[in-house]
Amino acid sequence: MPSNFKRLGVEYYTFHDRDIAPTGETVAQTNAKLDKIVALAKELQEATNIKLLWGTANLFSHPRYMNGAGTNPDLHVYAYAAAQVKKCMEVTKLLGGSGYVFWGGREGYQSILNTDIKLELDHFAAFLKMAVDYKNKIGFTGQLLIEPKPREPTKHQYDYDAQTVMGFLNHYGLSNDFKLNIEPNHTTLAGHDYEHDIEVASRYGMLGSVDSNTGDTLLGWDTDQFPMDVKKATLVMLTVLRQGGLGSGGLNFDSKVRRESTDLDDVFIAHIGAMDTFARGLLNAAAILEKGDLEKLKSHRYSSWDSDLGRQVEEGKCDFETLEKFINSKKESEQEPPRTSGKQEKFETMFNRYV
Amino acid sequence: MPSNFKRLGVEYYTFHDRDIAPTGETVAQTNAKLDKIVALAKELQEATNIKLLWGTANLFSHPRYMNGAGTNPDLHVYAYAAAQVKKCMEVTKLLGGSGYVFWGGREGYQSILNTDIKLELDHFAAFLKMAVDYKNKIGFTGQLLIEPKPREPTKHQYDYDAQTVMGFLNHYGLSNDFKLNIEPNHTTLAGHDYEHDIEVASRYGMLGSVDSNTGDTLLGWDTDQFPMDVKKATLVMLTVLRQGGLGSGGLNFDSKVRRESTDLDDVFIAHIGAMDTFARGLLNAAAILEKGDLEKLKSHRYSSWDSDLGRQVEEGKCDFETLEKFINSKKESEQEPPRTSGKQEKFETMFNRYV
Amino acid sequence: MPSNFKRLGVEYYTFHDRDIAPTGETVAQTNAKLDKIVALAKELQEATNIKLLWGTANLFSHPRYMNGAGTNPDLHVYAYAAAQVKKCMEVTKLLGGSGYVFWGGREGYQSILNTDIKLELDHFAAFLKMAVDYKNKIGFTGQLLIEPKPREPTKHQYDYDAQTVMGFLNHYGLSNDFKLNIEPNHTTLAGHDYEHDIEVASRYGMLGSVDSNTGDTLLGWDTDQFPMDVKKATLVMLTVLRQGGLGSGGLNFDSKVRRESTDLDDVFIAHIGAMDTFARGLLNAAAILEKGDLEKLKSHRYSSWDSDLGRQVEEGKCDFETLEKFINSKKESEQEPPRTSGKQEKFETMFNRYV
Amino acid sequence: MPSNFKRLGVEYYTFHDRDIAPTGETVAQTNAKLDKIVALAKELQEATNIKLLWGTANLFSHPRYMNGAGTNPDLHVYAYAAAQVKKCMEVTKLLGGSGYVFWGGREGYQSILNTDIKLELDHFAAFLKMAVDYKNKIGFTGQLLIEPKPREPTKHQYDYDAQTVMGFLNHYGLSNDFKLNIEPNHTTLAGHDYEHDIEVASRYGMLGSVDSNTGDTLLGWDTDQFPMDVKKATLVMLTVLRQGGLGSGGLNFDSKVRRESTDLDDVFIAHIGAMDTFARGLLNAAAILEKGDLEKLKSHRYSSWDSDLGRQVEEGKCDFETLEKFINSKKESEQEPPRTSGKQEKFETMFNRYV
Repeated sequence: MPSNFKRLGVEYYTFHDRDIAPTGETVAQTNAKLDKIVALAKELQEATNIKLLWGTANLFSHPRYMNGAGTNPDLHVYAYAAAQVKKCMEVTKLLGGSGYVFWGGREGYQSILNTDIKLELDHFAAFLKMAVDYKNKIGFTGQLLIEPKPREPTKHQYDYDAQTVMGFLNHYGLSNDFKLNIEPNHTTLAGHDYEHDIEVASRYGMLGSVDSNTGDTLLGWDTDQFPMDVKKATLVMLTVLRQGGLGSGGLNFDSKVRRESTDLDDVFIAHIGAMDTFARGLLNAAAILEKGDLEKLKSHRYSSWDSDLGRQVEEGKCDFETLEKFINSKKESEQEPPRTSGKQEKFETMFNRYV
Repeated sequence: MPSNFKRLGVEYYTFHDRDIAPTGETVAQTNAKLDKIVALAKELQEATNIKLLWGTANLFSHPRYMNGAGTNPDLHVYAYAAAQVKKCMEVTKLLGGSGYVFWGGREGYQSILNTDIKLELDHFAAFLKMAVDYKNKIGFTGQLLIEPKPREPTKHQYDYDAQTVMGFLNHYGLSNDFKLNIEPNHTTLAGHDYEHDIEVASRYGMLGSVDSNTGDTLLGWDTDQFPMDVKKATLVMLTVLRQGGLGSGGLNFDSKVRRESTDLDDVFIAHIGAMDTFARGLLNAAAILEKGDLEKLKSHRYSSWDSDLGRQVEEGKCDFETLEKFINSKKESEQEPPRTSGKQEKFETMFNRYV
Repeated sequence: MPSNFKRLGVEYYTFHDRDIAPTGETVAQTNAKLDKIVALAKELQEATNIKLLWGTANLFSHPRYMNGAGTNPDLHVYAYAAAQVKKCMEVTKLLGGSGYVFWGGREGYQSILNTDIKLELDHFAAFLKMAVDYKNKIGFTGQLLIEPKPREPTKHQYDYDAQTVMGFLNHYGLSNDFKLNIEPNHTTLAGHDYEHDIEVASRYGMLGSVDSNTGDTLLGWDTDQFPMDVKKATLVMLTVLRQGGLGSGGLNFDSKVRRESTDLDDVFIAHIGAMDTFARGLLNAAAILEKGDLEKLKSHRYSSWDSDLGRQVEEGKCDFETLEKFINSKKESEQEPPRTSGKQEKFETMFNRYV
Repeated sequence: MPSNFKRLGVEYYTFHDRDIAPTGETVAQTNAKLDKIVALAKELQEATNIKLLWGTANLFSHPRYMNGAGTNPDLHVYAYAAAQVKKCMEVTKLLGGSGYVFWGGREGYQSILNTDIKLELDHFAAFLKMAVDYKNKIGFTGQLLIEPKPREPTKHQYDYDAQTVMGFLNHYGLSNDFKLNIEPNHTTLAGHDYEHDIEVASRYGMLGSVDSNTGDTLLGWDTDQFPMDVKKATLVMLTVLRQGGLGSGGLNFDSKVRRESTDLDDVFIAHIGAMDTFARGLLNAAAILEKGDLEKLKSHRYSSWDSDLGRQVEEGKCDFETLEKFINSKKESEQEPPRTSGKQEKFETMFNRYV
């Protein structure tokens, strides 16, 4: 595996705790097994100079978590999940991980009839606060991340999309301690365009990392395909360039080859094809920003705000009376605003020249 | 119209400013026309004792608002919208409205290529803050409400769903000044069950009013049909009863008869059928709460939290180490939590006995 | 299991070949294992008087079929599938099955880039023709059935919905040899209402059997839930009653309890709740047909066709000139047809009285 | 308008009868108005050498058709529609149209409660048969076309997608008289990929013409946007090239600029951007076919059928016993087919090099 990473020229890897080591009968036994593999991973990291982007605990595959981990109605399961996350944060620190990700496929509900949504969310927030406390206690300096997904395997997952998660973090006072790991594949499942959550999270300073997988907008489930759409990769890279890169985050391929892609070389082809897609996207995005015509056309749309009145509004110093006066003080024939085209097709056509 | 309301036994009405009065050439002329109708409405209210539930400004039909009202790239349109809302709040106060609703069908985007999402949301928040200020200035004591909808006519509307709006209000410090007017029809368009936003908003103290319309979950657009599903009405009424009613809000039928329902009596039949649906829902919900078996089965799921450790977590006084110890202090064979059935089919079967 | 069937009062069962017996190394070994279980099944059938509704071959779980069975690009797999279906038809005959079902979860495509749709469909039709031939050869008198499903596990399944399958059967001359086994769960995945395929298949004389599962119209995957919606069960039962029952078919619960429903009694509760749902649906449907008001209102909509001209059209003896003359011979003011309300809300309100 | 067509270099146009001429009080008056415009159109055609691709009757906008045209429960409306189509076929012939299109936005149902699906489809088939008869009678030699769409404005439109329409035509003996006009925008609304219906119709010899509009797969309604996705255009053009062009059909832009694109030049930009998209698609498709590597890789997947046994199956001369023998005659270790990768990511990566 490490040699494959080197062959692909990849500098970082990520892991789920339960993917790299088997479980034992007890928490202690399971942790011991994990320790062995982690020691090996550390060795390999040092030998290859491949680094850990982030670690994460698998809190969704084991039937124990069928009703949730940090939102489980049973305190026993909740405590079990806490012990697992505690350990996973420790080994992530040990391996020098740049981040730690929470993805909560079971943190949601299947039926509203048997679920107390608010209680579960209160418990989940308490869980995340304890994670922050523990991070500080052990001196782990990586970024904590939440990865939104609207559903599957649950009918409704609480981390529905970027804005839902940002609202949740805000409500429970956790905004400063977390960023988002966006998988556009999940964004489309929530009904938004591939790039929507990337852009929204970025603009509010919350974009921490990206899982690049793509889905199929005509299917309703998570296909986790390798991204092959250069247009979409360009849009993602535009946002990433605009925010000056991903900082401690990265571009992860959490993708799977299709079940029918059974040759060994399919895994390589898929990674290469997807990396090329994002490489083309990056070049396109850089060209767009260098040339600047699209950005200029967009900022021109908002130029009326570069006025005294605009600034007054933006600084919270305006009121309805002032705005009404602005209209009423105009000549009758000029009260009605001029019709300003959104020029969507022009934007699309210009964008098409870059891809 | 008022006589029809009496015939149906309806005690409240609602209005869009542009539905009750035509527009003039200027803001002043338009306001004058509105004043005339409002005076008539006031008379009729007094004569019939039918009251105003809420008023709202139509900021989406006129082409002027095609690129948004409170989120328009053009400050001119923004100011125009402010003048319109100012007036509409005034007449809503005059008519003794219990609330004032913001629904922003054009507050969103059609293409991310030409849109600065963050700038538009900043402007929108400023707009709402000015509305709060103006409300206080004129002494309007009704509840301000936002009605979420994910899309249509825009591709993406910023008020996507209950949690998105709650997060937005939180972020911009507006949570105490607004509640939500939930239309379950819009909830399903955002990918949630009919009752989801009702429940979420209610549990966070944000459910202010309900538009009862139903949509068709297999279509992707807003059909605004009269609600005819007793099961769904029961779920909504359960939430409403649990929170002790809708306070100053109400249950509004913002529904339309089908285009093909062209007889005069269709409007009556539709209202009667839908009111009966919600009346049955209310009776069912009351029976569920009185009998209490469903509620008891649900709260039993969470009974493990009624322990010292549970309270410690809920009060924010616990940490990962304590929870790990809770697991490790158990006998080896008891570390693994017992598998507890979610009993979804039992809940569904019990629920079916009430509907 | 048989004792459970008796406890539930169920008179029929169904099976997948690979669910009842394990596989061996070779076709011969696999068949031998199946024979043993089939002998036991036969004994149990005789002891309990529980009968076989239909059998079916699982041609989708084994990786061998990942690229299809009757549509596989590799003739070797195709032949393997033929051998498996041959055997499964033999044992279905031996067990006195009333039917034999084809469900082709892998008969479709994942990517149009690597797929020759027409060639695969030609092969599939040839496969089904051989099945008909073999059925006749061995004297199996049960009904052959196809179960449509639009997708999952493939991206696109050729048996998309009832009308697609009926069109396919027609095109390849197979219409007289097959009927449809409709699972409304799959119908909703294809974008139609739960009852749509049931009704369409029935009206064209092609409804052979029903899998009653329900899905979740807001999710995009096949949840195979136990049906709990009395309104939908009523609509299905209306169609079934109108066509005079299901003949050699039946109402199958191919449903699964939720993953979280882990108690033994959940399986019973789910079956009982779902059977009660369909029992209530049957009673409602019978009441609707007995009372007759809904049927009468519907047939009244079409009463203009009970005229000479209407019959002429229906018998294929009319032409455009005659119809134009029908319009032009009217008084000018009567050329425009009267606006006739579809009265949808009235139908819905009347229907609601029965459920 | 014609000068704009020339400026764009467009050689064909299309029309809806009600878009080019207003209606009168009676059928005769309406026809007279249409005749005037048609005479002008004929003149302009001759002057500019721009030709008519196809004509079509608008049977969906007028409230008269709210419950359908060829499927209306009222024979009066049905006859009215017949008169309108009769006239529209006549003028299409007069203008030398290469085809005549049926698009039935109202040929479907809103509620199954008030609808007799089979009766309506029988009437619709009779309608189309009369159209064929009339076409022959007046000697119109253009191609009759049906344009599928799954829904909107109706909840369910009978012409759901390509295969549904092909099945319908087959069932009623109309297959030889109609081809399909595919709008991929509608294809995605039915849950298929943009190119699916194009490919399916083409492979069965039924692709007659293409409306190039694109939709938004994350919205549920028909946005009729100008196509801007070069990948999708490439796939469509691949199919068109493989079938040797569109014959008497064409590539129509039935697209609309966004409501917000209010500048005059937006219409030009949109057409140019979309035409460029399809031009790039055509070049890409030609390169793919010339280079041949993708086609070769695909046909290689099916190479096992180029054997005696394969041909036997394809010619309908095989049976299950022969296929079983094919398996059983192999060595035990070779009975199981080799696992053959579908190589989807390889196909995608190769395809990406062309776009």
